[in-house]
Amino acid sequence: MRLRNKPWAKDFIKEHHQIVEADPKSWKGKWSERFGNDNPIFVEVGSGKGRFVNEMARLYPKVNVIGIELYESVIVTGVEQAVEEPKPNLIFLQQNVNELQDFFAADELDRLYINFTDPWPKNRHAKRRLTHEGFLEKYEEVLKENAEIHFKTDNQGLFEYSLESMTHYGCSLQNVSLDLHNSGKKDNIMTEYEEKFSKKGMRIYRLEAKLHKKSIRWGSNGIRKVSRQ
Amino acid sequence: MRLRNKPWAKDFIKEHHQIVEADPKSWKGKWSERFGNDNPIFVEVGSGKGRFVNEMARLYPKVNVIGIELYESVIVTGVEQAVEEPKPNLIFLQQNVNELQDFFAADELDRLYINFTDPWPKNRHAKRRLTHEGFLEKYEEVLKENAEIHFKTDNQGLFEYSLESMTHYGCSLQNVSLDLHNSGKKDNIMTEYEEKFSKKGMRIYRLEAKLHKKSIRWGSNGIRKVSRQ
Repeated sequence: MRLRNKPWAKDFIKEHHQIVEADPKSWKGKWSERFGNDNPIFVEVGSGKGRFVNEMARLYPKVNVIGIELYESVIVTGVEQAVEEPKPNLIFLQQNVNELQDFFAADELDRLYINFTDPWPKNRHAKRRLTHEGFLEKYEEVLKENAEIHFKTDNQGLFEYSLESMTHYGCSLQNVSLDLHNSGKKDNIMTEYEEKFSKKGMRIYRLEAKLHKKSIRWGSNGIRKVSRQ
Repeated sequence: MRLRNKPWAKDFIKEHHQIVEADPKSWKGKWSERFGNDNPIFVEVGSGKGRFVNEMARLYPKVNVIGIELYESVIVTGVEQAVEEPKPNLIFLQQNVNELQDFFAADELDRLYINFTDPWPKNRHAKRRLTHEGFLEKYEEVLKENAEIHFKTDNQGLFEYSLESMTHYGCSLQNVSLDLHNSGKKDNIMTEYEEKFSKKGMRIYRLEAKLHKKSIRWGSNGIRKVSRQ
């Protein structure tokens, strides 16, 4: 994503601390309290300009939505939208996804979204991909048993990698689509990227991975490794 | 596949009983004896006109190859090839894949290939797809622990279905390709269908599913079901 410098973004974000929680660590294990209800909590990691989380929050008022995005000049677009059309069930964190476990307690989240994330095509950068085993471990800790990870991308290589990484981790797959916009799926919420790429005629790939938490996973020798309880 | 009536096929097959084993049940658990060596045994289910198994057997003389195809008028093409260029490591079975467990003992096979199988696109025919759970159970029984199933198809819907079915069964995936002929893979052996479809510019999908035998699989409620030991 091209980063435009927006000198006003920092102050704007500070000003709207009801929408962008500045101290997420203090709410670890208490997000239901922060939202003021016991509705399920869905998180988008790498939420970019925030169109997806804004739409989610608008369409599903009985779901609490959190968007995590590191870059000030990017996240601010979604914050502006949320200021224009306030949604009590939407919160942004301007944070690094690496620190997910500092913000959420074990089993606190109900679903995780990964949309059009950076593919990091070079092998030596594989660990930075948001579907790498290292991230799946983090998600596993904060997600409830049998929670789903919903993943969309236009990047064929990243999708192939993620199929391998996620199933090797012990996930099973459901609602796989290798060409989402020709699949007849009705309730798809588009991201900024998705609209752009699908208009160009590029395929959008999608899957739901069911995280069989505290389950087995497979070592490279094919032998089961029982994950941390 | 269009079936052409070939009245001579029946006699031709009978005549070449060294190549088409007429009584596979009698060799259950003893295929190494039939081949006269202890090399690994790879089976293609639904081997059609037999180009793939002929090529496999030619390129990999240290592997024993078995092609299973029900239709006389189809299998005969591969048998003709094997008569023209004899391969001691290639055997055909003119049989129904449903009866796999009658031909092979537990743990007798080292790898299974499914290439361009009938997609059976109607939901009510799902059980006939060669990647349906019912078939995976059969494969699991006759394959060795951690054996691989190599699967190729041009049919997007069948591939999506198979990703779900196989991972739900507890398989992990490796070497997934969503566009095989643009992937740079070198050692691909083409089938008749593959050549035809890829020439038309259609994508070929491929995966290897690792069968973690006697492992867990996931019930629709997300709870593990331990499979038969």
